[in-house]
Amino acid sequence: MTGSLVVVGTGPGKAELMTPATSAALARATDLVGYGPYLDRIPATAGQCRHASDNRVELDRARHALSLAASGKQVAVVSGGDPGVFAMAAAVFEAVEAGDPAWRMLDIKVEPGVTAMLAAAAEVGAPLGGDFCAISLSDNLKAWTTIERRLSAAAEADFVIALYNPASKARPRQLGEALALLRAKKKPETPVLFIRAAGTSEAKVVSTTLGAADASTADMRTLVIIGASTTRQVGRWIYTPRGERGIS
Amino acid sequence: MTGSLVVVGTGPGKAELMTPATSAALARATDLVGYGPYLDRIPATAGQCRHASDNRVELDRARHALSLAASGKQVAVVSGGDPGVFAMAAAVFEAVEAGDPAWRMLDIKVEPGVTAMLAAAAEVGAPLGGDFCAISLSDNLKAWTTIERRLSAAAEADFVIALYNPASKARPRQLGEALALLRAKKKPETPVLFIRAAGTSEAKVVSTTLGAADASTADMRTLVIIGASTTRQVGRWIYTPRGERGIS
Repeated sequence: MTGSLVVVGTGPGKAELMTPATSAALARATDLVGYGPYLDRIPATAGQCRHASDNRVELDRARHALSLAASGKQVAVVSGGDPGVFAMAAAVFEAVEAGDPAWRMLDIKVEPGVTAMLAAAAEVGAPLGGDFCAISLSDNLKAWTTIERRLSAAAEADFVIALYNPASKARPRQLGEALALLRAKKKPETPVLFIRAAGTSEAKVVSTTLGAADASTADMRTLVIIGASTTRQVGRWIYTPRGERGIS
Repeated sequence: MTGSLVVVGTGPGKAELMTPATSAALARATDLVGYGPYLDRIPATAGQCRHASDNRVELDRARHALSLAASGKQVAVVSGGDPGVFAMAAAVFEAVEAGDPAWRMLDIKVEPGVTAMLAAAAEVGAPLGGDFCAISLSDNLKAWTTIERRLSAAAEADFVIALYNPASKARPRQLGEALALLRAKKKPETPVLFIRAAGTSEAKVVSTTLGAADASTADMRTLVIIGASTTRQVGRWIYTPRGERGIS
């Protein structure tokens, strides 16, 4: 039998935010490959083999999944969120590029999902209502100077900024440095949102300002959103209007 | 009975990409408010009232939905994609801010969904695998100079760029101007993807380069992705590696 590989995202956490297309792809798979806690979200299917791994070995995991597909298995690689946004899809294609030339002939698909920033935004209103950017603060695979350059450009062009991977035990300092950089370029009253475990029953929001934001509020499960100049509060919601004042 | 309002997104098009949470919210609603073609995607529920409208009257539609909720209805405002990304959620909060103060006390929720750029990216591989930005090319509500400033910043900071609303009959010139601006700042071999009707059975991809890209390839249903300097092809896929060469 010819193997296949599909890269899926389980969404932000609760089952109701995983798409039916992803559920169907998972049910069809003979083998699931992914970080243990993501696999734990998926209902058991009889006869299906689960290959759980640590969360910091993406390329090894991708190679393992590609080998299984090449041997004839129907493989699903499981990410959280959307698999194409700071998740497993890019790692799979990196492994294809560097690996066995036969892997380029495999049946590989990506199923889109709800990425963390969309669930985080929905928890508080519509902060991503204008032009925005998404930046991972992890400097494991890129230079910190690259991240600084992108934060500066985002501030100067007045994008709403969504920060993925703002902090971890191994990277406690990055978010503080990012906020310091942004304070030099944006107004202190700019809304800042720390949204932890968005799209789960444990969701928790801290709504503050750039002037008052405390980087230690964030952990591995937090998504940070920094407003544009137009981002504002109405009632208990934070949103970014679709346009600029005076244009309609 | 106390009214409520939920803003939902049907995802990119096919039913399998609408989340179960959104399906449930739609089934609970007494009234659906939205652009006709989006309402047409939703299975009928007995006794439910549908208020279809044109696609260019977002604020009127939002006010109508809020009035219905204030009168005790369970209202769902229906967008395509994710409601918080270039869609109805921001319009609802604009209407709340400018409208009846009592609207601030309403039970308003936003349900996240799969936004167009995620479905578009999945069609071709993982082009959003690095830091990226999303820019709407519509200058109906913001100045063209604002859009130019954001395109320039995105090029200088080497973001992958997702362009929403690249073209319409009323706005035929914007994408050509945007591509000309980017050509002055990025290499001609930069991958450019025109992805039409992503996440539907009619999806169609044109994969080209910045040097060769023809703006007339895009229409209202097209999402355009412009690569970062690292975005590359492997086999029949386009992806952006998670990091930079030489850092691992």
